[in-house]
Amino acid sequence: MSADRKLALVTGAGGSIGRYTCAALAGAGWRVAGIGHGRLAPEDARAAGLDIWHEADVTLESLRAIDLRPAAIVHCAGSGAVGASIAAPHEDFQRTVATTAAVLEFARTGCPEAAIVYPSSAAVYGAAAKRPTGEDAPLEPASPYGLHKKIAEELIAMHGRAFGTRAAVVRLFSIYGEGFRKQLLWDACRRIRADETTFFGTGDETRDWLHAGDAAALLVRAIDHASPQCPVANGAAGEPVSVRAVLAELFSLLGRRDAPAFRGTPRPGDPVHYHADIGRALAWGWRPTVAWREGLRRYAEWFAREAG
Amino acid sequence: MSADRKLALVTGAGGSIGRYTCAALAGAGWRVAGIGHGRLAPEDARAAGLDIWHEADVTLESLRAIDLRPAAIVHCAGSGAVGASIAAPHEDFQRTVATTAAVLEFARTGCPEAAIVYPSSAAVYGAAAKRPTGEDAPLEPASPYGLHKKIAEELIAMHGRAFGTRAAVVRLFSIYGEGFRKQLLWDACRRIRADETTFFGTGDETRDWLHAGDAAALLVRAIDHASPQCPVANGAAGEPVSVRAVLAELFSLLGRRDAPAFRGTPRPGDPVHYHADIGRALAWGWRPTVAWREGLRRYAEWFAREAG
Repeated sequence: MSADRKLALVTGAGGSIGRYTCAALAGAGWRVAGIGHGRLAPEDARAAGLDIWHEADVTLESLRAIDLRPAAIVHCAGSGAVGASIAAPHEDFQRTVATTAAVLEFARTGCPEAAIVYPSSAAVYGAAAKRPTGEDAPLEPASPYGLHKKIAEELIAMHGRAFGTRAAVVRLFSIYGEGFRKQLLWDACRRIRADETTFFGTGDETRDWLHAGDAAALLVRAIDHASPQCPVANGAAGEPVSVRAVLAELFSLLGRRDAPAFRGTPRPGDPVHYHADIGRALAWGWRPTVAWREGLRRYAEWFAREAG
Repeated sequence: MSADRKLALVTGAGGSIGRYTCAALAGAGWRVAGIGHGRLAPEDARAAGLDIWHEADVTLESLRAIDLRPAAIVHCAGSGAVGASIAAPHEDFQRTVATTAAVLEFARTGCPEAAIVYPSSAAVYGAAAKRPTGEDAPLEPASPYGLHKKIAEELIAMHGRAFGTRAAVVRLFSIYGEGFRKQLLWDACRRIRADETTFFGTGDETRDWLHAGDAAALLVRAIDHASPQCPVANGAAGEPVSVRAVLAELFSLLGRRDAPAFRGTPRPGDPVHYHADIGRALAWGWRPTVAWREGLRRYAEWFAREAG
């Protein structure tokens, strides 16, 4: 651990994306400090790529209390689910919008030269976006979750214009990876194990899947592109795959010979199709490296170990 | 004070717009509760149109602590100056965005049938808007102040779509009135008294002035138009008047025979011209009643009394 490595601060470092981000930063030669929820023993923190770990809510006070001057901040803290944002919109606001305002004030007053990278969400586009969806598509989020991500982006872009803050935004599509204990793959694996083989929707819905390792690599790459103009890049594989194909693959990986069935009724509020234009991320020199079938194989292996 | 009068809650009731709003609500037959900053003796509160006064920051906790179930909420609390939002953007965020999120959560969980009226600002349009500016013009705020007002509007509109919250937004242009101890008229009167007669800008900048009594009447009127679609109306006279004309009138009202001089350099960040399309407010049956010269006469009289 040499003292001349640059320091990156990851908020929400204990979360799904946060943990992959810490590992990617450490792999790219950064010294990594994390703040967020979750107890981590020092040896577990080091194994996760963290040199420094602060267990705390992400607030202006807690950020200032850690007394660091990072050269980059990857703001992974925030809410993670559309449904929860409808059940508890104010909590979603606090987790996404209020933490972003705190990070921006911390940076403006404490480390104005830091590059800020924000993992936003495809939910900012809403259901009406044309596909493949480019970053300049109109932003018409359909949920509190999507609106709060859009507001976080707006606050960041404003700090670029008003204060010269350097930042970049990555709009993540359907991210998954070993260790994710939420979202479609986790729910699906648990249902399959419980012998529940009928799913919401028609199965023909598509998602643009990206392995969390690739997503984290893009977030690290985005640090080099941070500027007061706050560029935005989609984070996805650029290849829509149906929910039916993904679940059929999971069935097979988990040893089932039957196929998933679908209720035929879409879940309200969920856009039916996602397909990202990833030209900008590619222009940054980033490439997705984990094909979806390989990613699913890794996920199913991890799940099988986890589920015992 | 009869118990069957409906109850309106005014946040920021001790502020410039808030005080006019309380008086207008009381005049329209509402029982009025206020929350905000400022010590008010009970007799002063009653004179201001307030039946109930709580001195507190506007937070979810303080709103819940007052233990009322208003039929209408006029959310006047918030920041009031572009310059201050650049000097202290996080405080501006807290005052405008965080209080709005708190009011919405209070209403969603405590009085979902309440009509919410939000006095927003012409600053949401930004400098590029075509004139006269209609409510459907693109929103391109040029300052943290304007962005925070836009975000507050977005949060309110989302609560209409997601939760059926009934709301209406009024985008106020240049509001002034007796009692305003800030903004252009206050600064100008103080300068004139101090024999400083040279002003920023060219004098040819225009503002669409509206007396605070008329603004408050429009906010009260907006209660009847609150809906989950969250209609928006501009609040202005619809008549641009130059800063030179306003200052020349003030000079005369304050007994000076000379004319204002101008530095010729615009203040950075200030749009040069404002002119509102007020068709929607007129369609609501509202009319501005105080012509700008009459309003200035009242303001100058008040200032002369205040300044001793």
